[in-house]
Amino acid sequence: MADIQSRVEAALERCLPSADHAPRRLHAAMRYAVLGGGKRVRPLLAFAAGAAAGAAPERLDAAACAVELIHAYSLVHDDMPCMDDDVLRRGKPTVHVEFDEATALLVGDGLQALAFEALGAQRLADEPAAQVEMLRTLAVASGTRGMAGGQAIDLAAVGQPMTLPELELMHIMKTGALIRASVTLGARCGHLGAGELARLDHYAKCVGLAFQVVDDVLDAEASTATLGKTAGKDAAQNKPTYVSLLGVARARELAQELRRDAHKALADFGAHATRLGDLADFIVTREF
Amino acid sequence: MADIQSRVEAALERCLPSADHAPRRLHAAMRYAVLGGGKRVRPLLAFAAGAAAGAAPERLDAAACAVELIHAYSLVHDDMPCMDDDVLRRGKPTVHVEFDEATALLVGDGLQALAFEALGAQRLADEPAAQVEMLRTLAVASGTRGMAGGQAIDLAAVGQPMTLPELELMHIMKTGALIRASVTLGARCGHLGAGELARLDHYAKCVGLAFQVVDDVLDAEASTATLGKTAGKDAAQNKPTYVSLLGVARARELAQELRRDAHKALADFGAHATRLGDLADFIVTREF
Repeated sequence: MADIQSRVEAALERCLPSADHAPRRLHAAMRYAVLGGGKRVRPLLAFAAGAAAGAAPERLDAAACAVELIHAYSLVHDDMPCMDDDVLRRGKPTVHVEFDEATALLVGDGLQALAFEALGAQRLADEPAAQVEMLRTLAVASGTRGMAGGQAIDLAAVGQPMTLPELELMHIMKTGALIRASVTLGARCGHLGAGELARLDHYAKCVGLAFQVVDDVLDAEASTATLGKTAGKDAAQNKPTYVSLLGVARARELAQELRRDAHKALADFGAHATRLGDLADFIVTREF
Repeated sequence: MADIQSRVEAALERCLPSADHAPRRLHAAMRYAVLGGGKRVRPLLAFAAGAAAGAAPERLDAAACAVELIHAYSLVHDDMPCMDDDVLRRGKPTVHVEFDEATALLVGDGLQALAFEALGAQRLADEPAAQVEMLRTLAVASGTRGMAGGQAIDLAAVGQPMTLPELELMHIMKTGALIRASVTLGARCGHLGAGELARLDHYAKCVGLAFQVVDDVLDAEASTATLGKTAGKDAAQNKPTYVSLLGVARARELAQELRRDAHKALADFGAHATRLGDLADFIVTREF
């Protein structure tokens, strides 16, 4: 896992414009937002799905960068004063604090464009038509029926009562869509049939939901120092979470159930899916 | 031209998610930002380039929507308080005034994703590999070496002295890159060779620059009511413009020179390029 994380770090480093190129301050801020932090869960999922699909690592670099750039842009915009108004991310001041709000806005905008550029810069699929479909998949996962839409529902939910199905829909959009896209894009860099792609997609749905359940548990239990971002924020903002709806014990159980479902979806892949299985375990048992 | 404008309006209407679909307020705000306003210069350029390239109108709908959605997202973000802080756009309150800042941020983010989705949703080029290249072209034109980068340079320039070459570079990035992409994407929906594409690209460079020169003249001379946005803003913000650097008379001359160059680039296309020629004229002689 550490090998892939280093590989992804190097790929992101190459993908991001140099801070020597104009506009320098913007490029410096983009590098600040993306490099040297983060668990790289989405790139790890893309690489693990790629391993299950027999994909070339050079292709997976591009897919991994694309999903991580989308994730990084969403964090920069979510932290802005008009959204979550947060000052700490990955143990560092957030982009609008370290630079300024206008720069943070443009950093997010620029990172989103760069994600699509990364996914279109080289041949990634055996058939070019499949690559067009990959670009479309990333767009849908990032847009208002995916991540951006989930964020809008999340904002509207502050201080509002929410049922478990409503909470689930929000997370499926806000976090789940990009996690699914990470697995799909990694897998499509390789050579799988529709049935195998569908099983990996089911794996991704379970892992995406588990990720959020564990996030809620950690937010409720961990300290700011361990998380590298402001802890206890959900309760302070009176936001519905899996913990507020289910309690910590049931939320932990749910995460374990989702982990088991994720492993079941991998049954037919044998040793090729070892890394995907390990990631499901990591996502559920992580403590940060 | 009015026919194409209606056609584009209908295509945008279909492309944007319905305000009946969750998140409703976000989708309503996206429709507010895009529909029922704007000259649709970029879609008109895409359609006119497509006519010169023998492209099917169904393909051009997608290309036209993509470039207009990018343009619309940039207006929403540029108007936000941390950027230009403007309250009026296309004769209506800006999105963050009519809705709120968080919604405006997500509207822009969602519109950018939707642009790439529109460009990837159907077959647009004879070869799928050419369509991947089209998606990449739009990403580069929108990103920090294009539109978003130009905006960063523009922000940094407020109250700063700027030479004519610096001003030109800023506009080539901020406005020119997307205008070039509009022509390129429209042309690539059809069937042209590399030489013809290069000539259309030269046309697009001239028109892009002319567009900005005329914008500066109009901002200096027109009233807010005619423009549908706040007039005289550049001078009030002490921003360098073609008018502040060259004076109105020389700026008008420059626009005419660029118009002539644009027409020269179309010489070999004959009657197929009539609409491109008309658009160059329209862009230079417009009064709003």
